[in-house]
This record gives sequence, structure tokens and C-alpha cells, in this order.
Amino acid sequence: MKVSLGSKNCLYPMPITIIGAQVNGKPNFNTIAHVGIMDFSTISISLAKVHYTNKGIKENKTFSVNIPKEGLVKETDFAGMVSGETTDKSKVFEAFYGSLKTAPMILECPINMECKLIQTIEFPKHEVFLGEIVETFCGDEFLVDGKMDISKVQPILFVMDGTSYWNLGSKISNAWKVGKELVK
Amino acid sequence: MKVSLGSKNCLYPMPITIIGAQVNGKPNFNTIAHVGIMDFSTISISLAKVHYTNKGIKENKTFSVNIPKEGLVKETDFAGMVSGETTDKSKVFEAFYGSLKTAPMILECPINMECKLIQTIEFPKHEVFLGEIVETFCGDEFLVDGKMDISKVQPILFVMDGTSYWNLGSKISNAWKVGKELVK
Repeated sequence: MKVSLGSKNCLYPMPITIIGAQVNGKPNFNTIAHVGIMDFSTISISLAKVHYTNKGIKENKTFSVNIPKEGLVKETDFAGMVSGETTDKSKVFEAFYGSLKTAPMILECPINMECKLIQTIEFPKHEVFLGEIVETFCGDEFLVDGKMDISKVQPILFVMDGTSYWNLGSKISNAWKVGKELVK
Repeated sequence: MKVSLGSKNCLYPMPITIIGAQVNGKPNFNTIAHVGIMDFSTISISLAKVHYTNKGIKENKTFSVNIPKEGLVKETDFAGMVSGETTDKSKVFEAFYGSLKTAPMILECPINMECKLIQTIEFPKHEVFLGEIVETFCGDEFLVDGKMDISKVQPILFVMDGTSYWNLGSKISNAWKVGKELVK
């Protein structure tokens, strides 16, 4: 039986990301699961307006989206628990930079997307930053024949009910294939 | 060693959703993985401009976001393979409606979010629709003490490299907890 939960966002699990931004001249990192795909070169990240990271994104108009691996779950959780306002998070990870110069990326993360801010959408308590991906970096140990092997990446997934981290299971099937038998 | 992949969207895995819209007086369903969380009551869905579904969303200013379970993978894949322009998909799933009247939801899906269109963002080949969640429905078999149990939902996850569907693995840890030991 269907029951109503009111107006509740149940779009989970979502991939955990760590957002990198240069704030007050230092790299800062913030863990964010409220992200999205706009198109093949654009990502959205939603940050509560109170976050320290927002200042750097607005100032430099750049940020990075980093995909942590399961082995980084403690550091990832920590980066989401404490604010850059009171805790220097610049040494939690090793930062590296690309052509934008002000979007610190995380060396330890399998995947890093260097982004240029192209639009900001205002919500009552959140700012959603849309970033155009300028360049993507990947550790070569996560690639097989030039393609990303998600089972090697071991991404972390977030679920709001129970506020928990999950890992990826196994491959069910190929997309645009398993449904073919229903085509008449 | 880090290698550059150019500008490549690697924000995966993403939760597979089926978008419901009323088009030409009939329910239509379209499988979409390029979604996002804007804030606690707002979802983004990105649809290529060529999609049939877009017409209904623009006409009625409503749509639904449905979370299929692993057991529906064939039907889910099928809904993403064929266009409503040439194939009547109104009978692939059993539709039900909420207060908006024009956002068909899928009875077989564990979770259904009934949305009101609040904004459209234009990209070269895509339209991103922002939907305010008006009401969320959930099968009572997926709830434990009123909270959604994601392991019972068995959502389907999409990965672009290898264009494949994956299931959820196991819980790694609690969020805002496992990182506490790094707090000094």
C-alpha cells in the first residue's frame, strides 16, 4: 500500500563528492551529496548558504568536484563535519591545481573535475552552483582501456534516511540492452 | 599517476529514475539518470530536447520522479530505449495520480515524487527541469518505523562508462560519525 510522506526528497542514493575551493588563499574541502548532472559538461552542487566554501566559489568563480573512494570514508566524513571557518582543512588532503589555478583538487581521490562557475541558483537556504567541467583527472589505476572502471573507483554513496554511507554493489546488466526483449 | 580525460562528466553512479508526464492526454514514462538534488524539496531532471516527455512537462508544468527497484530493470531500460513519439508506453506501468492530476506516477516503483515545474534551465542540447516536490509516496513495505529502508528499495544505479546498471552494496558506516575520530 502506498503511503504519503508529505513533501520529501527521496532521490537517493547519491554519489558523495568533496568540493574543493580556494578560500582566503587556502584550499578548503567540503563533503557534498546534493549534486546533479545538468548535461555532459555541467554539474550542479548544492551548498547551504552558511558554508565557508561558498565564499571561495563566489570569489574565484571556480571549484572542483572530487569523487572519493571507500578507503577515504573517515577523511570524507570529517571534511563534511567541521567548517573551514573554524578548522583549517587544507592539510586533510593533498591538493593539486589545473589550468584554472584556483580550484584545488584532491590527489587521493580517484576522480577530479575542475569546474568554472557558470550560474548560481538561489534557494531559501541553499545556493546551487552550476559548474562547467574544464578538465577531468583520473588516477590511471582506475582506467581499463581508457575507460573508468567504477568497481576499481569504489565510490561512496549517501542515503539520507539513516544518514549513512554505502558502497556500490555489483553490475546488474547493460543499459539500452536488457529492455530490448520488451520491444515488439 | 593522474591522467587527463579532457572535459568529462564522471559524476557516477547516479540513481536511475523514471520520469512520468502526461503527453497528449496519456501517461508517458522516460528513464533518466541525469538528475540532481537542488534542496530538500527540489529536484532537477535533465532531458535531451528531442524527448517526447518534454512536451508534456512544458504543457502541464508537472511531472513525477519515480525510483524503480532492481526487479523492474527490464521495464526501466525499455522505457529509456523507445520514444513515446512512436511507442505507447502508457501501459508499461500502472499509473496513479495525486493532487496535481497531470503527473502520472508508477504504482510498481517503491518511491514516487509528484513535482510542480518551477524553473527550466536551457543547455545546448538539454532542458533541465526543476521540480518542487509537492508530495512523496512510498510503498509501506519499504518503510521501517516510518523511515525508508534503502536496502528494501533496491534502487538501480547508472554508470556511463560501460553504460551499465548496478545495485547498491552494503552500508559502510554512519555519516557525521565515522569522521569524528579525526576531530582534534
